[in-house]
Amino acid sequence: MRTLVHPERDQLQLTTILAALSDPIRLRLIRELALAGEMPCGEFASPVAKSTMSHHVRTLREAGVLRVRLQGTQRRLSLRSEDLDARFPGLLSAVLQADASVEDSARSIEPEPREGEEGGMA
Amino acid sequence: MRTLVHPERDQLQLTTILAALSDPIRLRLIRELALAGEMPCGEFASPVAKSTMSHHVRTLREAGVLRVRLQGTQRRLSLRSEDLDARFPGLLSAVLQADASVEDSARSIEPEPREGEEGGMA
Repeated sequence: MRTLVHPERDQLQLTTILAALSDPIRLRLIRELALAGEMPCGEFASPVAKSTMSHHVRTLREAGVLRVRLQGTQRRLSLRSEDLDARFPGLLSAVLQADASVEDSARSIEPEPREGEEGGMA
Repeated sequence: MRTLVHPERDQLQLTTILAALSDPIRLRLIRELALAGEMPCGEFASPVAKSTMSHHVRTLREAGVLRVRLQGTQRRLSLRSEDLDARFPGLLSAVLQADASVEDSARSIEPEPREGEEGGMA
């Protein structure tokens, strides 16, 4: 089974995490995860293509913001809240609390066609 | 007199601010400003070239993280703590508190020759 690399807690870098969070789709994803707990990658309610979503998930995983757990063919995502709070207390909650602005950013995202869901590629 | 554009408080965007903060030099600058209050641009204790510094200051100003006040030939910098706290409560302090990591990042910055200080350009 393929294993996915996750940085250890003491390897987490503030600049990398801030860069990973500086995107409206990724902010929306972490807000959904904060509400839902662990969630299959495919259930994320976002108007982005599957490949775009994979890129965002990888960016967040490599920064240490989320954990990806492989269960069969499913990739289950969860926030690494404990690790983040231990290393950068208050950072994640401050970002999650910035509700209004994140909502504003998310509303400005143009929907993209979803790959492989309508029986064809765009 | 040339005036510098600063975004209004209600125009501040979380993603833009996070991107502006996701750089070790810029993090170090905001930490110095948090300690010193208003500070002339030239007094920043950083091993970066003047042009690099100007780029970083502009990025932070355009994101709304700091204010640049022109006083004669001097550019005086200050953090927009009140505006940031009003829009994104706890964010700036969480970033500033992440001391150890920021220090680690700052230590890994390679010194650059400073322009116009040793009587020549590199």
